[in-house]
Amino acid sequence: MGGQRPRFIAVIGGARCSADALRHAEGVGRELARRGATVVCGGLSGVMEAVCKGVQAEGGISVGILPGTAREDANPYVTIPVVSGMGSMRNAIVIRSAEAVIAIDGGYGTLWEIAHALELGIPVIGLDTWHMSIGGQEDLSVILAEDAQDAVEKALAAAQKRHSSSNLQT
Amino acid sequence: MGGQRPRFIAVIGGARCSADALRHAEGVGRELARRGATVVCGGLSGVMEAVCKGVQAEGGISVGILPGTAREDANPYVTIPVVSGMGSMRNAIVIRSAEAVIAIDGGYGTLWEIAHALELGIPVIGLDTWHMSIGGQEDLSVILAEDAQDAVEKALAAAQKRHSSSNLQT
Amino acid sequence: MGGQRPRFIAVIGGARCSADALRHAEGVGRELARRGATVVCGGLSGVMEAVCKGVQAEGGISVGILPGTAREDANPYVTIPVVSGMGSMRNAIVIRSAEAVIAIDGGYGTLWEIAHALELGIPVIGLDTWHMSIGGQEDLSVILAEDAQDAVEKALAAAQKRHSSSNLQT
Amino acid sequence: MGGQRPRFIAVIGGARCSADALRHAEGVGRELARRGATVVCGGLSGVMEAVCKGVQAEGGISVGILPGTAREDANPYVTIPVVSGMGSMRNAIVIRSAEAVIAIDGGYGTLWEIAHALELGIPVIGLDTWHMSIGGQEDLSVILAEDAQDAVEKALAAAQKRHSSSNLQT
Repeated sequence: MGGQRPRFIAVIGGARCSADALRHAEGVGRELARRGATVVCGGLSGVMEAVCKGVQAEGGISVGILPGTAREDANPYVTIPVVSGMGSMRNAIVIRSAEAVIAIDGGYGTLWEIAHALELGIPVIGLDTWHMSIGGQEDLSVILAEDAQDAVEKALAAAQKRHSSSNLQT
Repeated sequence: MGGQRPRFIAVIGGARCSADALRHAEGVGRELARRGATVVCGGLSGVMEAVCKGVQAEGGISVGILPGTAREDANPYVTIPVVSGMGSMRNAIVIRSAEAVIAIDGGYGTLWEIAHALELGIPVIGLDTWHMSIGGQEDLSVILAEDAQDAVEKALAAAQKRHSSSNLQT
Repeated sequence: MGGQRPRFIAVIGGARCSADALRHAEGVGRELARRGATVVCGGLSGVMEAVCKGVQAEGGISVGILPGTAREDANPYVTIPVVSGMGSMRNAIVIRSAEAVIAIDGGYGTLWEIAHALELGIPVIGLDTWHMSIGGQEDLSVILAEDAQDAVEKALAAAQKRHSSSNLQT
Repeated sequence: MGGQRPRFIAVIGGARCSADALRHAEGVGRELARRGATVVCGGLSGVMEAVCKGVQAEGGISVGILPGTAREDANPYVTIPVVSGMGSMRNAIVIRSAEAVIAIDGGYGTLWEIAHALELGIPVIGLDTWHMSIGGQEDLSVILAEDAQDAVEKALAAAQKRHSSSNLQT
C-alpha cells in the first residue's frame, strides 16, 4: 500500500541560512510538488519555510513537524502542521517519516538529522551541506547534488530504489 | 494563518474495539471529511482504521502518527503516515496537533489521550468512552455525544469557539 | 540482574496539591528510602518535591525526569536530574522506568500516568486519587492504600510479585 | 543547587566498537567515578557497557537511558536504568542531561549526539571520534583528548567553566 501513496521526502536545513540555501530550498519544494511528492520538514523558518513556499506555489502538500506546542508556530506555507511539543527531538520524526532526505546548508540540527538518516539507512542527498570523517577516512554516504532539480531527481531515484529492494526482500 | 487551514480534529480509540465503535468511527470520519476537516489519529487498526476508511470514502485527508518505525505499519486508508518510532508516546502528538478530540470507546491508551487533552485545554467529545471522578466528584469535562454526527458537530463547534476566544485574547 | 538492583518505584502527583497530599508524599519518600528503594518522579514541585524531600531525609536516591531543558529546574531534593526537554511526554518515562507506581492526589497529568501504567501492566497504588469507569463499569485496577506506609508496602509487594512471575515466565 | 550535586557527564559511543574504544571507555568510567562525577550513557553494550563497568569498579553511579521498554535491557553495570521506550531518540536525553560529553569512537548515533550537544552549547570532548566540515571549513568545536585521563580532565574543566560563566550571567 505504501507504494500507492505519494513519495514522502524530507527537506532539512537551518532556520537561519544563506540566500543560496533559500533559493535551493524553494526550488526543491517546487520540483517535488510538480512530481507529486509530499514534503515533510520541521515547519519553521529559513530552509523549512522556503521549501513549503515552493510546494504551495505548485499546489502540493507539505507536513511540518513542529518542535513547540502551538499550531500557530508553523510557517504560513505549511499545509499540515503536526504539533510535537518535544523540541528538537522532533527532528527524528521528520527523518523517520521520509523515504529520502534532501539536506540543504545547515547547522548542527541538520548534521544530526543527516546522521540519524544514515543510521537508519534512509538515503541523504546533500546540497552544500556537511562533510564528515572518522579515523582519517571520509564518510561518502551523502549523495551530492548540484542544484535543486538534481537533488530532487536523486532523492526520488533513491527512494524508488530503496522501495524496490525492500519489495524484493519480502 | 491557522484559521485559513482546514480544521484539524483527532479521533482516538482502541485498536481492539466493539462493532459499535467501528461504526461510530467510520461515520465520524465520513462526516469530518464532508465538512472539510483534516483528521489526525494513531494510524493503526480498530477505531483508527475505521475513521481513516470513512475519511477516504469522502475524499478527505487523514494523518496517522505511527508508534513504530515503518511507514508500512499504517492502515491502508491513512493518507499521510508520520513515523514517530517512539511507541505510545506518540499519543501525545496526536492530541497536541488537534483543535478538538473525538474519543470513541477505548482502552487505557484512550484514557491517557483524554487526560492529556483535558490537561492542555483541548476540547474532548466522548462517544461511549471513559468517565472519571476524584475525591467523590465526577469530572464533567468530556462533552458527551450521541452519535457520529452529533460528535462531529460538537467537535467543530468547540474548535471554532476555542479559536475565536484565542483570537480575542491576542 | 534487575533483581539485584534496588527496587525502582515511581511516585506521581500534581505540582499543585493539597496539604494532605504533600504529607502523604513525604511519608512515602521516607518509607521507600528506609526500605532501600530508589524513587523516580517528575522532578518538579508539589508531590514531586515532597517525595524527594522524604527520600533525602533518609539518605536515599531520587531520580527526577524533568520536562524542561535545564538541570536547574529540578527541585532541590532531587539526587539525579535527568533532562528530557520533551515536556509532559516525559511522564511516560517516569512510568516505564518503574516497577510499581504510587499515585497521590493528582490532576490530569497524574490521570494519564495512571492510564499509561495500567496499559503496560505496571501496578498502581492509589492514595486519594482518580477513579475511572467505562460503559457503566468501574475500573478496579488501581490498588487502594490508606496511608503512606500502606502504599509503600503494597507497592513493594506488587513489584516483587511482578518480578517473581516474570522470572517464572522465562 | 545544581552546583552542589555531583558533576553529571555523558559518555557516548557505539554498541559495536574497537578494542581501543572499550579500553578508553572503561578508563573514562573509572576516572570519572574516582573524581566523584555521575555518568550518564545509553545503557547498552560496547562503549556504554565499558564505561559503566569502569564506574562500578570505583564504586560510582551510572545512569543508563535505555531505548527499549524493559529495565532488563540495561547492561549489568548500570546503576540506575531509565526506560524511555522511545528508541534512539533517547540519545537526546543522554546529551541534555549532561554538563559535558565525552565521545569515544562511534557510529552515526554518536555523530548525532555530538551534533546535538554542540547545538545546545554543551562541551564535547573527543577521543578518536568524528570530524566535520561544511563549506570547506573544518568545524573545530570538539575538544580533542589524548587518552581517558585527559578526556576526563577536559570534560570536568569544561563543565566547571560552563557552570561558572552561567553563574556570572545570573
